[in-house]
Amino acid sequence: MHFNVVVLPGDGVGPEIYSESKRILAKLKELYSLDVDFFEAEAGDSALAKYGEALPKSTIEIISKSDIILKGPVGESAMDVVVRLRQMYDMYANIRPAKSLPNVNSLYSNVDLLIVRENTEDLYKGFEFITSPGNAVAMKIITEYASKRIANVALNYAKVRRGKVTAVHKANVMRITDGLFAKSCREVLKGKVNYEEMYVDAAAANLVRKPSYFDVIVTTNVYGDILSDEASQIAGSLGIAPSANIGDNKSMFEPVHGAAFDIAGKGIVNPTAFLLSVSLMLQRMGEISKEEKYLSAASSLENAIRKVYSDGKRLTPDIGGSSNLSEIVTEIFSKII
Amino acid sequence: MHFNVVVLPGDGVGPEIYSESKRILAKLKELYSLDVDFFEAEAGDSALAKYGEALPKSTIEIISKSDIILKGPVGESAMDVVVRLRQMYDMYANIRPAKSLPNVNSLYSNVDLLIVRENTEDLYKGFEFITSPGNAVAMKIITEYASKRIANVALNYAKVRRGKVTAVHKANVMRITDGLFAKSCREVLKGKVNYEEMYVDAAAANLVRKPSYFDVIVTTNVYGDILSDEASQIAGSLGIAPSANIGDNKSMFEPVHGAAFDIAGKGIVNPTAFLLSVSLMLQRMGEISKEEKYLSAASSLENAIRKVYSDGKRLTPDIGGSSNLSEIVTEIFSKII
Ligand SMILES: CC(C)[C@H](C(=O)O)[C@@H](O)C(=O)O
Ligand SMILES: CC(C)[C@H](C(=O)O)[C@@H](O)C(=O)O
Repeated sequence: MHFNVVVLPGDGVGPEIYSESKRILAKLKELYSLDVDFFEAEAGDSALAKYGEALPKSTIEIISKSDIILKGPVGESAMDVVVRLRQMYDMYANIRPAKSLPNVNSLYSNVDLLIVRENTEDLYKGFEFITSPGNAVAMKIITEYASKRIANVALNYAKVRRGKVTAVHKANVMRITDGLFAKSCREVLKGKVNYEEMYVDAAAANLVRKPSYFDVIVTTNVYGDILSDEASQIAGSLGIAPSANIGDNKSMFEPVHGAAFDIAGKGIVNPTAFLLSVSLMLQRMGEISKEEKYLSAASSLENAIRKVYSDGKRLTPDIGGSSNLSEIVTEIFSKII
Repeated sequence: MHFNVVVLPGDGVGPEIYSESKRILAKLKELYSLDVDFFEAEAGDSALAKYGEALPKSTIEIISKSDIILKGPVGESAMDVVVRLRQMYDMYANIRPAKSLPNVNSLYSNVDLLIVRENTEDLYKGFEFITSPGNAVAMKIITEYASKRIANVALNYAKVRRGKVTAVHKANVMRITDGLFAKSCREVLKGKVNYEEMYVDAAAANLVRKPSYFDVIVTTNVYGDILSDEASQIAGSLGIAPSANIGDNKSMFEPVHGAAFDIAGKGIVNPTAFLLSVSLMLQRMGEISKEEKYLSAASSLENAIRKVYSDGKRLTPDIGGSSNLSEIVTEIFSKII
């Protein structure tokens, strides 16, 4: 099966990460005979400055003809790029693994949990108004349809993981909206996995207390945004966290971190989150095509990254190393087999 | 100045904590000639079972004649007790210190931050509807009035602390509601303290990465709920975290932890969060009355608790000790001078 991938290098450190990563994409393509074509397009703060739109029409055109988006970090216009794309193409499942890497200084080692975040509704719908001067209201939208759909995604992940799902909500306060989310999760998940529910404040505390308690967490958009950043940091660093936005027709893969303008252009940024996102992309290609080679390429890349981290000799400054972007990419490149 | 305090012992471990703590309240009252009367009233799951209402009319009557509420944990009916009381008496500032205690196993020592949570609006207003089968909407209400009011509370705390306030919001997505909150904070705080803003997801990560970065955090109701549980756990344990709900006419003091039905009646619960809440209550009495004796009593109690923790000999099982409720209370009692 053939895949067209649009790459949005993004802002800040995005372009240098992509430019260095190209050789890794090329090696994987060749080694595993991947049937993938890459196209570049502009999006983000720099596109906004140039075209007056963070997501220019030309970019949308390229995206609409592609299967997959591989996105670098974007700056202040992130909302207009990432939230818009998620909704425009109904990429309803935001998948955020929080998994420890060797030699990354962290509060816990061996964190391995997965946050499945509903990606299309909640306050992210953007229905907001000033009702009178000084008074604002936003709508939190929760539907049974989207809640059951995301619960099913969690179910599928739990089956190939440790079989446990924690549905996180605050139905003791938001009885109707979070109540509907909770009920939908219960209907889909109870009896099929080791299922439990937890209030979001307790979940935020328990992630700190005992992250190994969790396997798959399924939750609404806003809670998922907050808990996934917390969980990434608990697993080590936000700088190494990848993510996937999965839809039935299109998917988007992106690092969780931002544009990091302060270190942009210095060639010292950590490409791990982007490259792990590439690995998630290859996995998704494997799921869609049912072709082994994509899954093999995904594992090869993830294993190469893990090896570089267990060696610990070519790590970037953000995690205490002294190598630069190009050096760690070279090292990962050499370990791809 | 005279204070009438209604005590709501609550559910689960609440009654035993209060019953043991009475001797501490009595000692402080005598030692510092505090002009305080305590009244008991029922609220929570047990009240619901008995009277059909978690907050019975008789309790509301007693509360309406009192100045201060001292509340134990309540069970599943917490929302109908605590959120209702906060709104009914406009107790608009939820104050949540996250401060390390000696000998409490925690990810960081020397955490000392304060979360100032807006306590009356946001999704906690409870404006929620099913708009059609399977479709729910809740209103997130943000006003300039409440936002500026809470920003002023943060300002006052920052002045007597380390002079730094971080306003936490997600105005890149909720541009109108969180935008209004952010703008209000900026207008009140900028130029008066070391002021900065942070997105809530970044704040959740930074609390894990470097809690010492923060002094005072001011935020909206939902984010404050989540971040304060996270911060308590980072400072050591949710089981030792106190909180204050401050209004212009009434205030309520309560432990952050819940009713812990699993250990209720066993006499092994940790009373620290409740007793630290008593200390916050005495501080508030000092602020209102401008009488030194209340502040002295507050310090005396807090110091007694800290001494018991640095001795480390009479700690409860939840934090690795082997003493019971009565033993730690006796120890704290003996150190009140
Ligand atoms: C940039 C922002 C709009 C986005 C979000 O809140 O979803 C980001 O924080 C994320 O989690 O991907
Ligand atoms: C019990 C619940 C309604 C309450 C809240 O969410 O405010 C609690 O979690 C708290 O933080 O005091």
